[in-house]
Order: sequence, then C-alpha cells, then structure tokens
Amino acid sequence: MEAAMPSQPFADMNCSLARALSVIGERWSLLIIREAVMGSSRFDEFHQRLGIARNILQTRLEALVSDGIMRREASPQSARVHHYILTDRGWDLFHAIAALMQWGDRWMDKGKGPPVVLVDPGTGAPITSLKAGAGIDPRRIKLRPGPGADKNTARRLSAAQPVEAASA
Amino acid sequence: MEAAMPSQPFADMNCSLARALSVIGERWSLLIIREAVMGSSRFDEFHQRLGIARNILQTRLEALVSDGIMRREASPQSARVHHYILTDRGWDLFHAIAALMQWGDRWMDKGKGPPVVLVDPGTGAPITSLKAGAGIDPRRIKLRPGPGADKNTARRLSAAQPVEAASA
Repeated sequence: MEAAMPSQPFADMNCSLARALSVIGERWSLLIIREAVMGSSRFDEFHQRLGIARNILQTRLEALVSDGIMRREASPQSARVHHYILTDRGWDLFHAIAALMQWGDRWMDKGKGPPVVLVDPGTGAPITSLKAGAGIDPRRIKLRPGPGADKNTARRLSAAQPVEAASA
Repeated sequence: MEAAMPSQPFADMNCSLARALSVIGERWSLLIIREAVMGSSRFDEFHQRLGIARNILQTRLEALVSDGIMRREASPQSARVHHYILTDRGWDLFHAIAALMQWGDRWMDKGKGPPVVLVDPGTGAPITSLKAGAGIDPRRIKLRPGPGADKNTARRLSAAQPVEAASA
C-alpha cells in the first residue's frame, strides 16, 4: 500500500466541477438541499425526514451556511427555533440536483419508474430529460478553454480534442 | 455529542437523487468521470492529471466498474495495460456533470470566467445555461409523486405542495 499523496484542494483546481464539489461534495449536502427544495427548513424536519444523524446534520448545515448555500434565520414564532433557508446560490443548484435525480430515474428506478416527477407550474406538464446541448450526444460535445482557463487547462483542451466542425 | 444514528443506505431510499449519490457520491468519482470525458482512459493518465493518490484512484475505479459506470478493457497494445472506458450509463452522467460545472462557473469562477466551455459540435456555439424546465424559476417547479413513489413519498409530495395551477 502506498501512502496517499497530498492532492490539490478541490477549491483550487482550475475546474468548475471540482470547485462545485468542494462545496457540495459531501453526499448528505445535496440531500439536505433537496429536502429544503421540498419545503423543510427546521433542524428537526431535516433530521426526521432524511434519517440523518443529528451531529452530521449539524456539521453539514453549518458548512452550507458558511458556503452561502443556505442562511440561518430565527423563527418569527420563537427565537430558539431556527430556519435554514436556501439562498439564490443554493436554489441555483436545483438544475444539478434535477440532472442527478433524472439520471437516477433512468438507471436506478428498480423497474418502478421515478419516485418524483418535476412539473411545470404553469402547464402541469412533467419536466423530463434535462440534457445539455438540447439532446446532442455527449460524446460529441466539445470542451474548449474558457476565459478562466489556466495554461494547463488551455493546453490540454487544445491538444486533446481537435476541432472537427468549423468554429463559430 | 450524540452517537450517530444508523441511517438508511442511500441506495434504498425512495429518491433517485439518493440512489445516484450511492453510486457517484464520493467526490473523486465525478472528477474521474469528467477526466474520462476529457479523453483519459489509462490508470496513469487519471493519476497524473487529477493529482489523485494511487490507492484512492484504484478504489474509485473499481467501484465505478462494479457499478457499471465504466468498463475495464485490456489495451490492444499490451495485455498488462488496461483502459477504463465510460459505459452508456457513465456517459449519461454528462448532463449532471455539466449542470454542476455550470453552477461552479456561475458562483465560483473567481472573477475570471469559466475555465472550460462546452461547444456544440455542429455549430461551434457554446452550450450554456443548462437549466431544468427551460428557465422556469426552480422555486416554482412542483414536485409530484411519480410511479415509483412509495407511500411516504406520495404522502409528502401531496401534502407539502398544493397545486396552484391547473394540472394537465
């Protein structure tokens, strides 16, 4: 067995996925956010509905607050009760949660179909198949250096994937 | 400090997000999949490009293979070298990865813009703003019990979110 090599912190990588995972990479975090989307806000609601241990929940909620995903507010009813509310930054994770959920629907539904369906509030129609690039086969989607690319990222993306189609 | 209560395994929850996280909830897993999307397939490529410890990489690759996200193939050049290739199930995670990446672009770009841009292979146009429900405010999207909902899920989703609009 080789000793684990210290790796670069996720937040410092030149990769938006790694940076996102530095904030919500603990698997309970996304479930807590999903629970907030479903209307939970009090500690006991998260605890009971998720079946999560209180000490783990406390740690995760504190991290979500300090990372700006949730904010903590005293209840109007009682100063001793607090609500954990999604911020705009937290709500913006909805799309990633929906994409992971729909992957689970497609590959892990145990033959029973999806447990939860997203519904358009205006039309009542189900929102299905959240896909990048309007259904383009992901094997064909190109990765290109963006304005935030460091030298290493730019070199890799230029070398690895030669342009097949004319660029815009 | 309270002892941690044993919680239900993620794979057994009546929630496609939890089930997805049971497979790709270790934060290195999604980065390994992203690395495969970028063209890496050999152990050493993942090791060097991600800066991940060899023992952790080995464990994660084995889990991804046993969960059907990747398959392991002997290299045509040498039977001692193996390639780790994304399966269809693995490629289908592209949308979730893109959604997390674009969240990182919006909230954690350190003021420099996105490191990586997704590009339509046909037109060369950037693929941006992967959003559920064609831009509907996620606060307004409804969650409804699907065919795979158990009693508890169905009860919660019926009670928590009364229908505001006429259902289809």
